[in-house]
Amino acid sequence: MSQYRLEVRVKPRPGLLDPQGKAVHHSLNSLGWDGVGDVRVGKAIYIDMDAESPDAALEAVEVMCRKLLANPVTEDFEVSLVGEAEGADS
Amino acid sequence: MSQYRLEVRVKPRPGLLDPQGKAVHHSLNSLGWDGVGDVRVGKAIYIDMDAESPDAALEAVEVMCRKLLANPVTEDFEVSLVGEAEGADS
Repeated sequence: MSQYRLEVRVKPRPGLLDPQGKAVHHSLNSLGWDGVGDVRVGKAIYIDMDAESPDAALEAVEVMCRKLLANPVTEDFEVSLVGEAEGADS
Repeated sequence: MSQYRLEVRVKPRPGLLDPQGKAVHHSLNSLGWDGVGDVRVGKAIYIDMDAESPDAALEAVEVMCRKLLANPVTEDFEVSLVGEAEGADS
């Protein structure tokens, strides 16, 4: 059993309203960045977990996304493995 | 001038309290994922912008992070280029 660190990026679906992104967009424009087009704000979630293998960890976190971390109606998610720490504690 | 898409990941600094991460951690444990250690919740921000070059885009977004997108006292950030769309509109 190794410990893995996974990164989840949860992003509002294209076409859906993203008020937080709009607010950031306006702020960037008023700070002088005129070249900024679209801004979308989502979540980045970092999970340390024990699993038998990298694949098992990725699979578990995808299930977590579908059950808890992302709203399947309004958000897309991507999971990636960012590190491994053999026998490390959380 | 090309349009670039950049991804910013803003993450609570190690050691600092992250109540949202704690809440997710507890929820995952109660859903039966006992192997989950630490959970940290940050932001993933996607920015489409016009810039002269990929380096100019990255540099501009790093300045945005320091000025607006991240709290330098409590958060770390990483910027990466995720795409390029020659002449595309936002």
